[in-house]
Amino acid sequence: MNKVDIDKVVHEVFTEKALHELYCKSNSCAGWERNVIDQPTAVKNIINNGADRIAAGIGVGEQLPDSNVAKYIDHTLLKPDVTPDQIRTLCEEAMEYSFASVCVNPSYVKMCYDLLKNSSVKVCTVIGFPLGAVTTEVKRFEAEQALANGAQEIDMVLNIGMLKQGEYDYIFNDVNQVALTTKKKRAICKVIIETCLLSDEEKIKACLISKKAKADFVKTSTGFSSGGATAGDIALMKYVVGSTVGVKASGGVRSLEDAMTMIEMGADRIGASASVKIVSGEVGESSY
Amino acid sequence: MNKVDIDKVVHEVFTEKALHELYCKSNSCAGWERNVIDQPTAVKNIINNGADRIAAGIGVGEQLPDSNVAKYIDHTLLKPDVTPDQIRTLCEEAMEYSFASVCVNPSYVKMCYDLLKNSSVKVCTVIGFPLGAVTTEVKRFEAEQALANGAQEIDMVLNIGMLKQGEYDYIFNDVNQVALTTKKKRAICKVIIETCLLSDEEKIKACLISKKAKADFVKTSTGFSSGGATAGDIALMKYVVGSTVGVKASGGVRSLEDAMTMIEMGADRIGASASVKIVSGEVGESSY
Repeated sequence: MNKVDIDKVVHEVFTEKALHELYCKSNSCAGWERNVIDQPTAVKNIINNGADRIAAGIGVGEQLPDSNVAKYIDHTLLKPDVTPDQIRTLCEEAMEYSFASVCVNPSYVKMCYDLLKNSSVKVCTVIGFPLGAVTTEVKRFEAEQALANGAQEIDMVLNIGMLKQGEYDYIFNDVNQVALTTKKKRAICKVIIETCLLSDEEKIKACLISKKAKADFVKTSTGFSSGGATAGDIALMKYVVGSTVGVKASGGVRSLEDAMTMIEMGADRIGASASVKIVSGEVGESSY
Repeated sequence: MNKVDIDKVVHEVFTEKALHELYCKSNSCAGWERNVIDQPTAVKNIINNGADRIAAGIGVGEQLPDSNVAKYIDHTLLKPDVTPDQIRTLCEEAMEYSFASVCVNPSYVKMCYDLLKNSSVKVCTVIGFPLGAVTTEVKRFEAEQALANGAQEIDMVLNIGMLKQGEYDYIFNDVNQVALTTKKKRAICKVIIETCLLSDEEKIKACLISKKAKADFVKTSTGFSSGGATAGDIALMKYVVGSTVGVKASGGVRSLEDAMTMIEMGADRIGASASVKIVSGEVGESSY
């Protein structure tokens, strides 16, 4: 995908956005901007106002969860001081509540595989995490090793500095190398774009390049930067990637209400550490 | 180094500490604890009171810098959204001020090597950064590749969760694999122990294991966790590793005064993003 194509789609998306803002009837209709973090109703207004175009992409309604929100959740523990004992508890909880996966750092993949191999819970790990600034060769090696150790889902971080510099070929190759490595093992590849560090235009470019480079999902956040998932970002990302690529909301999802809002906006998966509290309806404290 | 040996040395260090507290004359003599972050004078009191034992190790006086503090500084830019243009500026500043090195993420090592190959400024990079939670094999591969791309200094992060669980053989091997890889290329290996996440006992263990595993330096912080270098931690680390292993203070070193305090406490190297402000005597804003 060359620069002209990317700029064309970005222009189209921005035109689309402008149209929806035109249609929008209330003052709280704030578009995709980050300030919708506390205004999920504003985003709902946008979607409702442009339902014939956006709703299908976002899948409001058909993607609303039944009582079991657990199947959307990657049960996550990525802090650097997490011990093997805590990882064991994470796996036990994931089996008890039937979460989609556990999401752990690479040094715990093999342990989780051994603990979960007789369950339906998958092992998800993170690559080039959380800065995205290792070389492509290291990301590919890290993914190969994680897959060999039993990982079935790979959440890689895009190289943010290179994106900001406009090095789209670099970004495409960086994602594509990991995505192809992952597909060889019939595993899935999610690309973390770290929305809180990007402009709307950069978010769109990151999503377009990730889709072109064969990513299965785009994901908002590492949980280690200055912000997490927002309803507006989820809606924007889902709109850009369409129905064939999933969207994962991560960072700051602490309650059932947060999770339901993200799913309503188009999220296909939720990354959370407060997973048990989410499914039991409590409000969690941890953001990743 | 087995558990019994480690526990013996930890016991000796704590006994030593207790002795110094006994000798200490002022109420502000707070030992190695983290609350000395705002009390460098408290630490100085300890050193002065036990000078015949500690001062030699810490090297107060003989290590005080001449007017050129620049040679102690690793000029650092590790944020995930740093662009190639910003890295170019970093390298130009490093040459202008004769800093010891530039410290950058692995994807920029080759670029920095090309920019700095005709200067005295070395290229330093970070491995398993900032969480320390990738596998040992990935750390070794990452180091090999960074060295091949021109890195001369390797700052690796220790696996903090494994340290907390008491997996000392794992920690030793993790550090040793990277240290041996580094030595083959006549480069140097620093081990980041992330002091803000460790108890004093864990800091001592991390230093002892790193030394035994052939590290050239121990380093306080990644700059991406909950705290940075403190005067007390530098004094403790220097005391534990002795004169044959260096200590690098990183995270939160923002001014010439900060830098001088760290060097007085025993630091052989300073990691800072505010390097230009430090050498020109201004107060910087960035902590890493």
